[in-house]
Amino acid sequence: MAASSSPHALLVQQPLRPSSPLPCKQALLVAPLRRKTRLSTISCTAVRSPPVSPSVATGRIFNFAAGPATLPESVILKAQAELYNYHGSGMSIMEMSHRGKEFDAVIKKAESDLRLLLGISDDYAVLFLQGGATTQFSAVPLNLCAPGDSADFVVTGSWSDKAFKEAQKFCKANLIWSGKSEKYTKIPAFDGLEQNPDAKFLHICGNETIHGVEFKNYPSPSNKNALLVADMSSNFCSKPVDVSKFGLIYAGAQKNVGPSGVTIAIVRKDLIGNAQPITPVMLDYKIHADSASLYNTPPCFAIYICALVFEDLLEQGGLAGVEKKNQKKAGILYDTIDESNGYYVCPVEKSVRSLMNVPFTLKKSDLEKKFIEEAAKEGMVQLKGHRSVGGVRASIYNAMPFAGVEKLVAFMKDFQARHP
Amino acid sequence: MAASSSPHALLVQQPLRPSSPLPCKQALLVAPLRRKTRLSTISCTAVRSPPVSPSVATGRIFNFAAGPATLPESVILKAQAELYNYHGSGMSIMEMSHRGKEFDAVIKKAESDLRLLLGISDDYAVLFLQGGATTQFSAVPLNLCAPGDSADFVVTGSWSDKAFKEAQKFCKANLIWSGKSEKYTKIPAFDGLEQNPDAKFLHICGNETIHGVEFKNYPSPSNKNALLVADMSSNFCSKPVDVSKFGLIYAGAQKNVGPSGVTIAIVRKDLIGNAQPITPVMLDYKIHADSASLYNTPPCFAIYICALVFEDLLEQGGLAGVEKKNQKKAGILYDTIDESNGYYVCPVEKSVRSLMNVPFTLKKSDLEKKFIEEAAKEGMVQLKGHRSVGGVRASIYNAMPFAGVEKLVAFMKDFQARHP
Repeated sequence: MAASSSPHALLVQQPLRPSSPLPCKQALLVAPLRRKTRLSTISCTAVRSPPVSPSVATGRIFNFAAGPATLPESVILKAQAELYNYHGSGMSIMEMSHRGKEFDAVIKKAESDLRLLLGISDDYAVLFLQGGATTQFSAVPLNLCAPGDSADFVVTGSWSDKAFKEAQKFCKANLIWSGKSEKYTKIPAFDGLEQNPDAKFLHICGNETIHGVEFKNYPSPSNKNALLVADMSSNFCSKPVDVSKFGLIYAGAQKNVGPSGVTIAIVRKDLIGNAQPITPVMLDYKIHADSASLYNTPPCFAIYICALVFEDLLEQGGLAGVEKKNQKKAGILYDTIDESNGYYVCPVEKSVRSLMNVPFTLKKSDLEKKFIEEAAKEGMVQLKGHRSVGGVRASIYNAMPFAGVEKLVAFMKDFQARHP
Repeated sequence: MAASSSPHALLVQQPLRPSSPLPCKQALLVAPLRRKTRLSTISCTAVRSPPVSPSVATGRIFNFAAGPATLPESVILKAQAELYNYHGSGMSIMEMSHRGKEFDAVIKKAESDLRLLLGISDDYAVLFLQGGATTQFSAVPLNLCAPGDSADFVVTGSWSDKAFKEAQKFCKANLIWSGKSEKYTKIPAFDGLEQNPDAKFLHICGNETIHGVEFKNYPSPSNKNALLVADMSSNFCSKPVDVSKFGLIYAGAQKNVGPSGVTIAIVRKDLIGNAQPITPVMLDYKIHADSASLYNTPPCFAIYICALVFEDLLEQGGLAGVEKKNQKKAGILYDTIDESNGYYVCPVEKSVRSLMNVPFTLKKSDLEKKFIEEAAKEGMVQLKGHRSVGGVRASIYNAMPFAGVEKLVAFMKDFQARHP
């Protein structure tokens, strides 16, 4: 009674048209598809329609959003191809039991690929959680501190400030450095940090999404028993990291590695199992570590997309190469800003400028709205700075192609020439 | 500089083949697609390959999983068609800022359609959260009780038991009735419930996914000021509910209304704003109500799928009609069990049998493995009972077609005839 065969997946890649600057890869898909199958008996002829309206974008645009953010085009195409019938199972990945063999393979591969990418040893648990980094702002002190314990916070922007404020509910949280008076444009010198000798951990935010400051290396807790804890939401998997320097790394996926809805925690195993009694069950790392992130139903689809992204990053050769690409992209953008004779201004100290989020302003701030609107018309969207700081922000995560940044800097130069 | 046009979406529906009992709708999709556009200049000729292997299912199968569970086929096809380029935006819905106009329209429509479906008044907030019902097991007492407050729990199965146990961390939780000694096959008579006069709320689980017992109507808290609170994860939107009888309803989406990764809470507004000081920020309803579920990045894709499901339920005419369909499906399944002369046994008391989850055993329990295996071969999967209870369980949520249950009961009769 098994169903008979049906047409198979056909992915047709068309060459980029010289007239189009967009990565307009086109895929012709048959929904109930199967992998590794014969394509030879399907023939298709696609003839372009004339544009219905030149203002309607038909292909990929360059999406500079801070998160949710652009994903690798190949990942979206694969997810689309598989969405109706995952690997011939007759079900969408969205419909599958999280305890079935298909999803089991997905989450295990996601974990093992992430371990490869970041060189995560068996001393660490890798957890796929829900609730965003904001949930971890509570979970970190609840899991690592007794109520009276002390913990140190370096506040380099809005996100580490939120982590610091939330931690005050659950431990004695100390603000040992704040960049607020300098509008969050700096990272402190590590030797000048006055850490508390009894602090259980030292918390940093690896990259501040809103302010665009990024740690290029990491401080060590002065107390040998203390732990370094990092929110790496917005630069996770954008470069190699020596995980062994950290007690805990956590990251919302929706910048570099997936859609929103899944949060990854990498926790040194010996730290697990000491949550405060008031810890909600879903915030207790032990619960998730003991059940391999399957204590209750996980966000399966988001984990599946992460798995595709990790696979893609490995196929690119891993994070050292990814970092080089990110340096090159950020390089031409910061150079354009710095060589604009003050037309564009990035307030962040050069040594700690983020490779991921590039905030800048126009000297003539009344032109910023026009800048953002014109860029959008040319297929570069989501360039508005965060509502708390204004200006312009270009988020250029792993999946932003070099061509996208090239196009942006060409536009910036042109805009400057047209509006001197 | 706008991109030029590209091939457009083409949805080809093929008639069902008489030889196939599966709802094998087939869609031919062009990935970078746009709605409402001209199709005439695309021509495709698809010639079937012979089956690679007859054992590989190529179309939809009937998925009886308890959750994540089957979704409406039309929803999956629509999500697939839109995945690469959402409404001509040049982005996937997965890549969009949660504060952009496209996602804003999605989440607002999801909320307004859900309000229509359930007749939710403005006295209630509708929240899209993360972490599953299990997170609500903590959030409910944290938001509705001071630490010493009393709350009553009726335990009709595993899920209400978990809710009761978690609440003990945050309030004085009273177990006022348990079906454990009768293996969770009953719902108590409401007039016999010994409620505590000082209880802040009375908690029930509307439908126990594992044990298959469902409330057909609802008890009232004896204290006029107390609230009825229900976990409706596994029968949410399967029938009309008078929301005004409840202080709070919560539900994980992954049964009737979406994929895993989003949890919906319907909270009476006057109850919001009194969370205990130790409430993690992400568990505080006020945080989410004040920011329309956008305090931090929500699980955008999961919410988008829910929006498509709500739209589909409205197009079906709403929940009264959906309930009728569910009654009809469950009816033929329970009839088959009851008319099998004890070959199949459902342990649940008839008056409270779930329309969603139908657990049963075979008198000859050694045949259960064979039953499940043979059903899978015929395209009916995920029929294994929960690991804690064994046996067989057919979850027949909204999106399970009548044809799926018809096929299951035909198989059951045939199996019984073949293995008397």
